[in-house]
Amino acid sequence: MLHVGIVGVSGFTGLELVKLLLHHPAVSIDYIASRSHIGEPLSNIFPSLNSICDKKIEAINEDRLKSLDVVFLALPHGVSMELVCKIHNKIRLIDLSADFRLSKDLYEKWYKTHLCPDLIETAVYGLPELNKDKIKDAKLIANPGCYATASILAILPFLDIIEGDVIIDAKSGVSGAGKSLREDLLFSEVASSFRAYSVAKHRHQPEIKQVLSEMKPINITFVPHLLPINRGILVTIYANLPTIFDEVFLFEKLKRFYINEPFVRVLKNLPQISNCVGTNFCDMSFALDKDNNRLIIIGVIDNLLKGASSQAVQNMNIMFGLKEEEGLNLKPYYP
Amino acid sequence: MLHVGIVGVSGFTGLELVKLLLHHPAVSIDYIASRSHIGEPLSNIFPSLNSICDKKIEAINEDRLKSLDVVFLALPHGVSMELVCKIHNKIRLIDLSADFRLSKDLYEKWYKTHLCPDLIETAVYGLPELNKDKIKDAKLIANPGCYATASILAILPFLDIIEGDVIIDAKSGVSGAGKSLREDLLFSEVASSFRAYSVAKHRHQPEIKQVLSEMKPINITFVPHLLPINRGILVTIYANLPTIFDEVFLFEKLKRFYINEPFVRVLKNLPQISNCVGTNFCDMSFALDKDNNRLIIIGVIDNLLKGASSQAVQNMNIMFGLKEEEGLNLKPYYP
Amino acid sequence: MLHVGIVGVSGFTGLELVKLLLHHPAVSIDYIASRSHIGEPLSNIFPSLNSICDKKIEAINEDRLKSLDVVFLALPHGVSMELVCKIHNKIRLIDLSADFRLSKDLYEKWYKTHLCPDLIETAVYGLPELNKDKIKDAKLIANPGCYATASILAILPFLDIIEGDVIIDAKSGVSGAGKSLREDLLFSEVASSFRAYSVAKHRHQPEIKQVLSEMKPINITFVPHLLPINRGILVTIYANLPTIFDEVFLFEKLKRFYINEPFVRVLKNLPQISNCVGTNFCDMSFALDKDNNRLIIIGVIDNLLKGASSQAVQNMNIMFGLKEEEGLNLKPYYP
Amino acid sequence: MLHVGIVGVSGFTGLELVKLLLHHPAVSIDYIASRSHIGEPLSNIFPSLNSICDKKIEAINEDRLKSLDVVFLALPHGVSMELVCKIHNKIRLIDLSADFRLSKDLYEKWYKTHLCPDLIETAVYGLPELNKDKIKDAKLIANPGCYATASILAILPFLDIIEGDVIIDAKSGVSGAGKSLREDLLFSEVASSFRAYSVAKHRHQPEIKQVLSEMKPINITFVPHLLPINRGILVTIYANLPTIFDEVFLFEKLKRFYINEPFVRVLKNLPQISNCVGTNFCDMSFALDKDNNRLIIIGVIDNLLKGASSQAVQNMNIMFGLKEEEGLNLKPYYP
Repeated sequence: MLHVGIVGVSGFTGLELVKLLLHHPAVSIDYIASRSHIGEPLSNIFPSLNSICDKKIEAINEDRLKSLDVVFLALPHGVSMELVCKIHNKIRLIDLSADFRLSKDLYEKWYKTHLCPDLIETAVYGLPELNKDKIKDAKLIANPGCYATASILAILPFLDIIEGDVIIDAKSGVSGAGKSLREDLLFSEVASSFRAYSVAKHRHQPEIKQVLSEMKPINITFVPHLLPINRGILVTIYANLPTIFDEVFLFEKLKRFYINEPFVRVLKNLPQISNCVGTNFCDMSFALDKDNNRLIIIGVIDNLLKGASSQAVQNMNIMFGLKEEEGLNLKPYYP
Repeated sequence: MLHVGIVGVSGFTGLELVKLLLHHPAVSIDYIASRSHIGEPLSNIFPSLNSICDKKIEAINEDRLKSLDVVFLALPHGVSMELVCKIHNKIRLIDLSADFRLSKDLYEKWYKTHLCPDLIETAVYGLPELNKDKIKDAKLIANPGCYATASILAILPFLDIIEGDVIIDAKSGVSGAGKSLREDLLFSEVASSFRAYSVAKHRHQPEIKQVLSEMKPINITFVPHLLPINRGILVTIYANLPTIFDEVFLFEKLKRFYINEPFVRVLKNLPQISNCVGTNFCDMSFALDKDNNRLIIIGVIDNLLKGASSQAVQNMNIMFGLKEEEGLNLKPYYP
Repeated sequence: MLHVGIVGVSGFTGLELVKLLLHHPAVSIDYIASRSHIGEPLSNIFPSLNSICDKKIEAINEDRLKSLDVVFLALPHGVSMELVCKIHNKIRLIDLSADFRLSKDLYEKWYKTHLCPDLIETAVYGLPELNKDKIKDAKLIANPGCYATASILAILPFLDIIEGDVIIDAKSGVSGAGKSLREDLLFSEVASSFRAYSVAKHRHQPEIKQVLSEMKPINITFVPHLLPINRGILVTIYANLPTIFDEVFLFEKLKRFYINEPFVRVLKNLPQISNCVGTNFCDMSFALDKDNNRLIIIGVIDNLLKGASSQAVQNMNIMFGLKEEEGLNLKPYYP
Repeated sequence: MLHVGIVGVSGFTGLELVKLLLHHPAVSIDYIASRSHIGEPLSNIFPSLNSICDKKIEAINEDRLKSLDVVFLALPHGVSMELVCKIHNKIRLIDLSADFRLSKDLYEKWYKTHLCPDLIETAVYGLPELNKDKIKDAKLIANPGCYATASILAILPFLDIIEGDVIIDAKSGVSGAGKSLREDLLFSEVASSFRAYSVAKHRHQPEIKQVLSEMKPINITFVPHLLPINRGILVTIYANLPTIFDEVFLFEKLKRFYINEPFVRVLKNLPQISNCVGTNFCDMSFALDKDNNRLIIIGVIDNLLKGASSQAVQNMNIMFGLKEEEGLNLKPYYP
């Protein structure tokens, strides 16, 4: 039985971690902590958890953390590294923030001064479909961003044949922004509406570029949009092909690429968000614009699950030699 | 291991049964059948089930059914009894239709001529919080309607003290109407809107009245409304009190009534649909209109789960001596 | 040409007033003011008004106000009366707040100490279908609350025949709460959900009761709910009849009651919110629960229009001898 | 006073035409017709029009049509040309279908055999911002498609400087599909979801390409998506620049391009659908991806208005020498 802690339980990714790990057959949640609401039962913040998890939120305590097998950090960017710097060598860590995803230079360009840049190189980018072997032995997992997960998984199978820039037109549900009390996240602003934001300057753009560039030089244009739904990301990706490819060939190539991956569903039909939400799947499909030798790849994930918390659990399973699907046979919310 | 069949898998309640039973630790789904789509994998109808359940849909075959331990019938009203009449004495049945919920007279007034009225009396109304003992030995369960479940659970604890008529103002998400191809269920008609329907003539009204009347004579006014959401029912119930009651007394009374029930959550705050959806819970709360000696009870369920499929599984657990919560530690969909 | 001012343009009802009055054929908007955003164009706050109304927001100035023909006050409760006390005798006022709707005693019980209680009696409750004659000469209009408008219009035609208490189960879209930055108004909390609030203690309850009680003693139980939509109110009203009434008789009675009212639509079918939103109509229908001699009345309005701003314009039209429909031939938003 | 007819009033664009023309100061709606519901009041089909337009729907009669000044055809593709072929030389026509938008060859490739191909050349593509002069004298207007309107208006100002292919990632509300009774348009399928469709094979792709190619050779990749909202289109357009451009220069260029156009709003901030819905505006903005010399243009319209019916009225105004904005000072639906 793994003794697990979750730090940062007052946000949505913390909430999802609790829901996933509560009945994970190999896990005991020994410790839930937050910077606020200390002493309150978690169900005070999230009444949906009434009689499911009435565990009390504890203060963040380094000694307590060190006594565990693994700790999930669901803290804001910048806050997470403060804690990681202190406890990293004592215990295996899965960090859901962006603090260890980027090289020092990129991180400091897009976020802020890094507090423990030496640790960045020891961190493993926790995308199991890309880094499974490294994850097994990782002490510190940098759990990927939601947009980055969907985008990288969609591009990877075709990376060797595409050429030139890649354009990612991404659309996300509102939960990606967490519970922040912002006017632009009010129901009256989001419902019946749709908009782009952070056009070509979203922080997941360097993350996607860095990960893919390790395999092949690539430029990325990334434009995120806000959907009037709670959960789910759909990315529509445009990539150029140097020549005419056959659709059957491309489908087989894609199929083969993920043949051993339990959490990528390669679809013949176009995916839709509602079929994926609630699961750890990435749903993928593509179409060919033959007139322009352009490949259009579509990827769908649940931003809070494969884009955050269930991917973190998938990483934990791999780190501790459990079955990768353990505790993750989730059912789609549809309808 | 229970060998289970599900008949009527092409509708939403059938879909939910499959999702619930697939990883139920005591169950093996041996047989899924439908009147249409025979020979197709279930994931053809519900792409959300891709690589989760690609089982093929079979034709409805009485011999196959008789070889099982228990069969769930998720068929339309009227169709279900045709099958029940034929196989009832061979196998334990959980019928999610209305066919065995009402007395012959009421059924024939609100639905149609009954094909096997003698069976009605042998059926047990499958509301575990009311009939747990009878359910244990039942051969045929009449699984309650969604509105009836929410309404009865909300009224029961106070039935002894209220007097006069009870008014139920009910609001349901769209999935209660299933996947019917009706113009009034199009997105353009439902989104950004709200309306009442079947005012004072909905078929769950006699169901609620019949069940409660067995305990105490009561009149019911029932008005359902259609919410622009997929899942969830909230009922607001108005009942008269003969005298002034103390709120603390009423809260304790309610709390005590459900003290041993794992699936009723008695709340101090007002419940909301999103906290309950995805679970087998009924969330309950009340307020007192002291000026008018009127009790206002609020009940919330997921119409497809506690209002249909997970309640059916709860019934199965009880029928077969399993732990009542087995396979039902579901997590709320929120956010 | 009427010279009009709008005070409190940074909220939703202020916004609606601007949209309605901009092209009202008999009106010139000479002055828009607010307590904040002074000096900014209105389209800064509401980008939807770009190139429609780029007028600058001015500070609230009593002298400026006094030079106008009529001023609409779209200020919060409590703030409005401060201004009214100062300028009431100089100019005709239409106050959209609750400050002059209730008797002093009721106001002080439900809101706060009143600053100019003597003025309350001079104010006319601006429900044209009830008080048209008084509105003509009014100096100060207390524009009705949104829930109160829908409820009173629905009850009025039947007030003489119903007996006993009236129960109002009301459902409103989110815009009724304005643009307040509250966690419970975030998209993630409201979407896919539904809940009751202020059960039997909402401030529109005494307003409804006071208005109706002037005609006949009556008790009201009022329970509001929050719909996951932006606009629209639907009230479902339960009233007892002393004896059996004929449906045709009741329909004719209702029809006749509003025969001369241009803004009440008496419908044979059940109304729905989307058919009414965007207009100054109140849509009405009823059903009879014959088993219980209970009348179920349904009323629908757009909470920001007939429930606030377009009703205020209707009042202005009447006050200044214009055609009641002037500037109000609005078209429903549907689809 | 123009005597106007509308053929095809049972669909959404017909409904919008009625709403727009009913109080248009220069118009009298003399005739509304449809292929179905003949003899019924229009408010039977659209109860939202109760007491607004209870006019009876007539059969389609060529003689009646010929007696009018102008006729709007809101018929399905293929059906429209049947009627146009018969009455084209008698009366001025504004056709909202696709039947006269494309060259014969393109039409027959993407739709079906054309019945009167000679007329295609006489038709004027009714995008006022492009063809105002030709529209003045047009006998037959081919009113642009919704996606085409948004896309062309967004690309036009930059057409001279972009090079290479243009990628259009388009997102539309559900009303674009009309009231079709299709399973994929049910609330349960659309709500809380999002998906691409007709990837790189939507019929508006050749329309956009044809219109732009008349000015400059260009290739288009077009991918539409379905938003869980009723109204609105947002297009995100990716175009390559041959060199580094200055953002201020580009903004001024855009501003200048539409300086005389009353219905294009050039915005400094990113547009959002809810600010535009309800109006005849096209809202536009752009961002520069400097790392990749890529221009990202965003355009927003109401698909039923500027994308169909109000653009048709704008065309009528121009054809008959009226003020272009006549009857079109619509207010945004927000909130």
